[in-house]
Amino acid sequence: MGKLWGGRFSKTTDEMINEFQASIQFDKRMYQEDIAGSIAHATMLAKCGIIPESDTKAIIDGLQGILADIEAGNFSFDVALEDIHMNIEKRLTDRIGEAGGRLHTARSRNDQVALDTHMYVRKETANIAKLVLDMEKALVEVAEKYSDAIMPGYTHLQRAQPILFAHHMLAYFSMLNRDFSRLKGVYERADIMPLGAGALAGTTFPIDRQLVAEQLNFGAVYNNSLDAVSDRDYILEFLSFASIMMMHLSRISEEIILWCSREFSFIELDDAHCTGSSMMPQKKNPDVSELVRGKTGRVIGHLMAMLTTAKGLPLAYNKDLQEDKEGLFDTIDTVKFSLSVYSAMIRAMRVNQELMLKAVREDFSNATDLADYLVKKGLPFRQAHEVSGKSVHYCIEQKKWLMDLTLEEFKQFSPLFEEDILEEIKPETCVANRNSFGGTSYQQVELQIKTAKEIMKNQQAIVDEYDKKIKL
Amino acid sequence: MGKLWGGRFSKTTDEMINEFQASIQFDKRMYQEDIAGSIAHATMLAKCGIIPESDTKAIIDGLQGILADIEAGNFSFDVALEDIHMNIEKRLTDRIGEAGGRLHTARSRNDQVALDTHMYVRKETANIAKLVLDMEKALVEVAEKYSDAIMPGYTHLQRAQPILFAHHMLAYFSMLNRDFSRLKGVYERADIMPLGAGALAGTTFPIDRQLVAEQLNFGAVYNNSLDAVSDRDYILEFLSFASIMMMHLSRISEEIILWCSREFSFIELDDAHCTGSSMMPQKKNPDVSELVRGKTGRVIGHLMAMLTTAKGLPLAYNKDLQEDKEGLFDTIDTVKFSLSVYSAMIRAMRVNQELMLKAVREDFSNATDLADYLVKKGLPFRQAHEVSGKSVHYCIEQKKWLMDLTLEEFKQFSPLFEEDILEEIKPETCVANRNSFGGTSYQQVELQIKTAKEIMKNQQAIVDEYDKKIKL
Amino acid sequence: MGKLWGGRFSKTTDEMINEFQASIQFDKRMYQEDIAGSIAHATMLAKCGIIPESDTKAIIDGLQGILADIEAGNFSFDVALEDIHMNIEKRLTDRIGEAGGRLHTARSRNDQVALDTHMYVRKETANIAKLVLDMEKALVEVAEKYSDAIMPGYTHLQRAQPILFAHHMLAYFSMLNRDFSRLKGVYERADIMPLGAGALAGTTFPIDRQLVAEQLNFGAVYNNSLDAVSDRDYILEFLSFASIMMMHLSRISEEIILWCSREFSFIELDDAHCTGSSMMPQKKNPDVSELVRGKTGRVIGHLMAMLTTAKGLPLAYNKDLQEDKEGLFDTIDTVKFSLSVYSAMIRAMRVNQELMLKAVREDFSNATDLADYLVKKGLPFRQAHEVSGKSVHYCIEQKKWLMDLTLEEFKQFSPLFEEDILEEIKPETCVANRNSFGGTSYQQVELQIKTAKEIMKNQQAIVDEYDKKIKL
Amino acid sequence: MGKLWGGRFSKTTDEMINEFQASIQFDKRMYQEDIAGSIAHATMLAKCGIIPESDTKAIIDGLQGILADIEAGNFSFDVALEDIHMNIEKRLTDRIGEAGGRLHTARSRNDQVALDTHMYVRKETANIAKLVLDMEKALVEVAEKYSDAIMPGYTHLQRAQPILFAHHMLAYFSMLNRDFSRLKGVYERADIMPLGAGALAGTTFPIDRQLVAEQLNFGAVYNNSLDAVSDRDYILEFLSFASIMMMHLSRISEEIILWCSREFSFIELDDAHCTGSSMMPQKKNPDVSELVRGKTGRVIGHLMAMLTTAKGLPLAYNKDLQEDKEGLFDTIDTVKFSLSVYSAMIRAMRVNQELMLKAVREDFSNATDLADYLVKKGLPFRQAHEVSGKSVHYCIEQKKWLMDLTLEEFKQFSPLFEEDILEEIKPETCVANRNSFGGTSYQQVELQIKTAKEIMKNQQAIVDEYDKKIKL
Repeated sequence: MGKLWGGRFSKTTDEMINEFQASIQFDKRMYQEDIAGSIAHATMLAKCGIIPESDTKAIIDGLQGILADIEAGNFSFDVALEDIHMNIEKRLTDRIGEAGGRLHTARSRNDQVALDTHMYVRKETANIAKLVLDMEKALVEVAEKYSDAIMPGYTHLQRAQPILFAHHMLAYFSMLNRDFSRLKGVYERADIMPLGAGALAGTTFPIDRQLVAEQLNFGAVYNNSLDAVSDRDYILEFLSFASIMMMHLSRISEEIILWCSREFSFIELDDAHCTGSSMMPQKKNPDVSELVRGKTGRVIGHLMAMLTTAKGLPLAYNKDLQEDKEGLFDTIDTVKFSLSVYSAMIRAMRVNQELMLKAVREDFSNATDLADYLVKKGLPFRQAHEVSGKSVHYCIEQKKWLMDLTLEEFKQFSPLFEEDILEEIKPETCVANRNSFGGTSYQQVELQIKTAKEIMKNQQAIVDEYDKKIKL
Repeated sequence: MGKLWGGRFSKTTDEMINEFQASIQFDKRMYQEDIAGSIAHATMLAKCGIIPESDTKAIIDGLQGILADIEAGNFSFDVALEDIHMNIEKRLTDRIGEAGGRLHTARSRNDQVALDTHMYVRKETANIAKLVLDMEKALVEVAEKYSDAIMPGYTHLQRAQPILFAHHMLAYFSMLNRDFSRLKGVYERADIMPLGAGALAGTTFPIDRQLVAEQLNFGAVYNNSLDAVSDRDYILEFLSFASIMMMHLSRISEEIILWCSREFSFIELDDAHCTGSSMMPQKKNPDVSELVRGKTGRVIGHLMAMLTTAKGLPLAYNKDLQEDKEGLFDTIDTVKFSLSVYSAMIRAMRVNQELMLKAVREDFSNATDLADYLVKKGLPFRQAHEVSGKSVHYCIEQKKWLMDLTLEEFKQFSPLFEEDILEEIKPETCVANRNSFGGTSYQQVELQIKTAKEIMKNQQAIVDEYDKKIKL
Repeated sequence: MGKLWGGRFSKTTDEMINEFQASIQFDKRMYQEDIAGSIAHATMLAKCGIIPESDTKAIIDGLQGILADIEAGNFSFDVALEDIHMNIEKRLTDRIGEAGGRLHTARSRNDQVALDTHMYVRKETANIAKLVLDMEKALVEVAEKYSDAIMPGYTHLQRAQPILFAHHMLAYFSMLNRDFSRLKGVYERADIMPLGAGALAGTTFPIDRQLVAEQLNFGAVYNNSLDAVSDRDYILEFLSFASIMMMHLSRISEEIILWCSREFSFIELDDAHCTGSSMMPQKKNPDVSELVRGKTGRVIGHLMAMLTTAKGLPLAYNKDLQEDKEGLFDTIDTVKFSLSVYSAMIRAMRVNQELMLKAVREDFSNATDLADYLVKKGLPFRQAHEVSGKSVHYCIEQKKWLMDLTLEEFKQFSPLFEEDILEEIKPETCVANRNSFGGTSYQQVELQIKTAKEIMKNQQAIVDEYDKKIKL
Repeated sequence: MGKLWGGRFSKTTDEMINEFQASIQFDKRMYQEDIAGSIAHATMLAKCGIIPESDTKAIIDGLQGILADIEAGNFSFDVALEDIHMNIEKRLTDRIGEAGGRLHTARSRNDQVALDTHMYVRKETANIAKLVLDMEKALVEVAEKYSDAIMPGYTHLQRAQPILFAHHMLAYFSMLNRDFSRLKGVYERADIMPLGAGALAGTTFPIDRQLVAEQLNFGAVYNNSLDAVSDRDYILEFLSFASIMMMHLSRISEEIILWCSREFSFIELDDAHCTGSSMMPQKKNPDVSELVRGKTGRVIGHLMAMLTTAKGLPLAYNKDLQEDKEGLFDTIDTVKFSLSVYSAMIRAMRVNQELMLKAVREDFSNATDLADYLVKKGLPFRQAHEVSGKSVHYCIEQKKWLMDLTLEEFKQFSPLFEEDILEEIKPETCVANRNSFGGTSYQQVELQIKTAKEIMKNQQAIVDEYDKKIKL
């Protein structure tokens, strides 16, 4: 059988082009969406009196048979039929004859593809929301497990001030929490039903688009047909979400790689999440973190690709837009993998509390506390800062830490120093004293964990709601 | 005066580096935010008993004097002071003496910069929301003004089906409407107050962050200090919004450039929005559209730059993050210009209705209607499609349009054709018949306009609300 | 059998990670390179006395058997063995026993992968050079075939000055000629042999890297082992070349799409390079051009991905770098397809000379010639330009073209006009008169074609030379 | 005075648009190129008899006066005149009257802008070549200065094998050497003369483009006028070069940031290249490296912007292309700053040899040497690798290093171990033994330095040659 649009043409399309423009290799993953969409469409066509009830019944039976075949691995996809839509429709016509030819009434491949892609993105957005929530849980679990571990907080990769390891983990919780919010925006803007837009202008058949939307649990219907077939915002917005989220994972990856180095040695990953070297037997490489950090570039590249492709296209559909799927699908796979493996890896990693604390003790990251001490004794901040700087300078020359100085030595720099200074610059005190809202103190971190749990309860409700919607 | 952090160092920073890392050239545009933030901070410090009431009074007076100086053009910014924050603080200390040195108590440059940038992004987000709404209005106005103009709808830049010009304009309304939704997300995630995070870990002073947030109309407060100083999500999300929105403007630009070509000649722009050529006097170039289409690349480039820069950075602050501002500011300017000029240009353009209609008449874009006609007579869709294709083929050979065929000629292809076929394939009928929800029919377009007006009413309320929030 | 580096570990790697980090699905395409590289390595090891001659013989026999198996489709790749290198080595050891275990002496997976990838990029660079040359040929053929076709030259998509269609085609020749030059740079920097760098620091065995390089026809050997295993410049440079070249194809695609529109109708593509619509039977869509234009975004995205991934990695190898291959391979496929299909499409397209000429006649694109005419009569350029502008203005009001004006009408604008003005502004004269070097005159275009043929002769010699080098 | 192309228009361009499309703020930096180009053009016009000799004399005098004014700071640029070209031409006409109006004969703004930009890129390419060479020198100097410093070589940021610090520095030399090669390609493709292409199609005047090229030291002349005005390859190729080179600097930046951390402490930067903290007085931040790493994103963003902007534009000039300059200029500044500061910083940094060596001693990075030892005693590589892995495993359990094991302990794992094993796994021996070409041995590194010096001698000759060419 030739191309279905072959009527007008006197030659068949060049073989090479056929292969290059066929999308069946990657769009077959939308078979469930394609079938569910066709069933909803056929049901509506009959309800609206556009095709006979009996045809719809035959169509639905046929499609369910095809679904079963695909899931059982008994369906062979044909590149000559280009895409998942034609593969299924051709099989349907083979199975049920002329009724199959009526399924495409009042729809076009343009709105059909749009429908399937919306449903697919919506489903995977829901799945990813679940995974984001699970990684949040992992972070909170680890924060609770190591609730009193103190580590150096860094700026410029220089030790800056002592912080709680839990506080550090919860910073990533905050990022993922924002990712979850953005994901809700993606869901909302993917959850719009395009079918019925036809090729670009709507259809002359008396269809009921609301009925299709209801069957497929859509929250809204596109109210402009040109927009319905040319909109790729939801894909771009998904890719933007994914790029930002992967950037977060890339940041934690960078940290985990640092912490696994001999020089830091703050954590040890479970063997399951590391690999060795074919040449150097002693190596235990944090491959997963490196891979996730590397794949961040890949996801950003997909966003770049899609923005560039969409930029400057006139309305409505242009073939360029077929490029929307591979990068999208690869991003979905990458994001799902990255979140899954990170949840497991974080839960399984071991924290070397002693080494962390040692790093805090052997440093000047309590210099701010020294300055704050003086401010509280009445010195203006900028002067206190200078005294603190000179004390550190003195220590470096004397090869000492601030905690090694005697009160006499302190008094060289300011008469305001008193006995209590030594207590004040202990790591535990430094941490406990940063008790401003959102600070690293034990009390604030406990509060953060409580808040995180409330947030996650709300997110669980959303995830459950999504789950119901995407079940068809 | 040397660098304020100069205490520890024995050499001054290399001159070249100073210049390169100074940000005063571009961050001075945040002077209002910096001053408002400092006033709120100083007020809180006094309320919490951290500095004397009298110092706060002196600080506020001093800052208001500086604000007046800057707005009167009587403030000379000094590169040696690096950034807007130090320029203002230094001037303050010069004006009011020691009390000025107390302003920086319980804050760090890290959280101060974060505060200013949040406020600035929030303000410009609000301003841009207004401009998006205005362009939506322009599109609806034009849709109403040319409510019965028929043009060819295109796919693959091939004439596909007749549509209303108003329907085409409203497709862009739909895009901007989604842009507005995304902008709300940006606003929400910029509207979080970071001050009090200190350098990274909070502060040891008994500050009240909620009080600062209230003074500055913030909707929320960061509850993790590490996150507060290293979060750049709101900038990335703004750049993502801007990239997608500019992509929309790039698409309409591509169309306007096409429509202004001699070959299309669908519209004529106002002279005010065009330029000529130094060499070719007859030229009237749609420069604005070309510029906007070109600047889309620039905005996408800024998004890419920021994603790449943020990717892989460990917590908390790293100097790399200083790169967040120039691309952001340039994007804000670009987006504001593009929206403003487009609103004006769309309102002022003239539509050549006759030429548009001629383009519809002299084409086969009613071929789908021919097929639909047959389907309604009972032919399965795929067969009707083939008959229609053959009719077109015949016309091409005969150098005719479908409307030129006689009933006899039609009957050659199918006995189902009857007298009414000629009425059925007139452009006006084709348009009127696409009356499915969201279709291009006169009735549906009227409905779309009604809906658009309701949407804009809601957006106006949001814009007004934002306006109140950003007034300080 | 477990992982080869499993000795140190007490747990097996998580299943999900295995699958995600396995590269066999995409790196199996380098099987020829892997086998050729191993044969060269084994040969060298024996020559240098590092392993027995008999082992090398067994290794070579074994590898050649495996090569035959793969090419006959009798080799099943195993994901558990991760990559093409381990798949082949494992099979070799199964076939020839202990001698197989000696093949990896004095090499590491790091330098082995680097070798294979260099050879692969070098091979495909040579193949692509051939395709660039072929497309250049197609452009020159078409330029010669339609050597006197006149079309409007455009700036800002406004008709600007009459040009030869051949001149337009040859502009693309110039672009591809530069692409070819850049490709030589890529070849040169891919043609460096990394094997012998070991994991990162070289090897303690007395190897002879020059010997390996000679067997594999490499022009140079990396002289720093750290650089050898972490260099991805040649991939980035290939992706940069590809992005720029695809940008060129995207520009010609945009033009072909325009020219195929009803509004322009300058060319007709062969049916073999177009597709139809499932909904609109009359459509003949320039899908190939749209696809190539769309895939340009994809290639740019791959460049972005790799730059982002490589950015900020410490030396030497990091797992992130495994991300170098998929984008590279996809780019190679895309570039090869795009060039091949374009060569065929350009050769097969038909040019509508009459419509092109009509577009020139019915326009003001001879306005510059009017101005130049006056300059030659002594008027300063800026004044001549103004006169020409006013003449056009007058024509627009009178609904005439410049060629429709009488001498009297011309004289209204300047007394310098004489009888010969009408001849001077004919399209053919306008074209012929632009006879400056590189201009659009018949004579200059003929010269360009002659030069192009000489350039292509030199390029053919380079392509032949490459062909010899990549045959192993 | 109005716009020079104002003749045809009845309204003046919208004020906002004027400001947005004016380029004078950034293109004024090309004033030297614009004046030199105009002088060459005027000289040619007279030689070819197109304008009188006396006019050319007046033009040259006038332009030299303007050049002097600009360099003395006595020229005020006017935004209303849009760009550097009109600013200079207008001033010229003011100074010398009608003769000034003849300067634009036989040229268009399109080819004039193209000429200036080519000359500017060529000049800065030459300047950057010098800076690349200087940074290479700095790397070689440091390699010689610390010729026997041993450090851990890393893969996956895990200590892998001992290497010479000099070897590490020379890996960056290799990268810059490739950057230099790529820069030659940029120079070559910028060094093509576009003037005489007119607006797009050449000119009707009998100009001599070769004469202009000779005066301006161009190596070639564009031989297709459409290509000449629409080519932006040289800019894209420059941005690609810059992106790859900045990626190299980003990698060394990442390492310097790591090495400056307390955890590594391998180097200390000069105070001149660091900054402190306003909050934490003990901090010494490697800001320059962070800034360069951050600015890498910016440069990549500019490349992406330009690729996206150029993609899909029809020939010839489109206003979108005006977007080519700001990103280009910013990239030039960024690259020049980054190279300059890095050359100084590398020369001034201090290496902590003892800490580096300590890091080598307290690790298992000699495990490969253990395996190699066994292979040399006859064990197949894969088995030797396993023995080595088990030895390391044993050491970890016993909290020992390999060098702490007794011969008896070694013999537990293989009877092949003998007395000499302890000597064989000393860091110095490990380094010395990696004596394969390109390896890290003392001898190989010495050879590398010798080769580097020869390479730099050749590069110096190229740099000198460029210098002569760009002097006008």
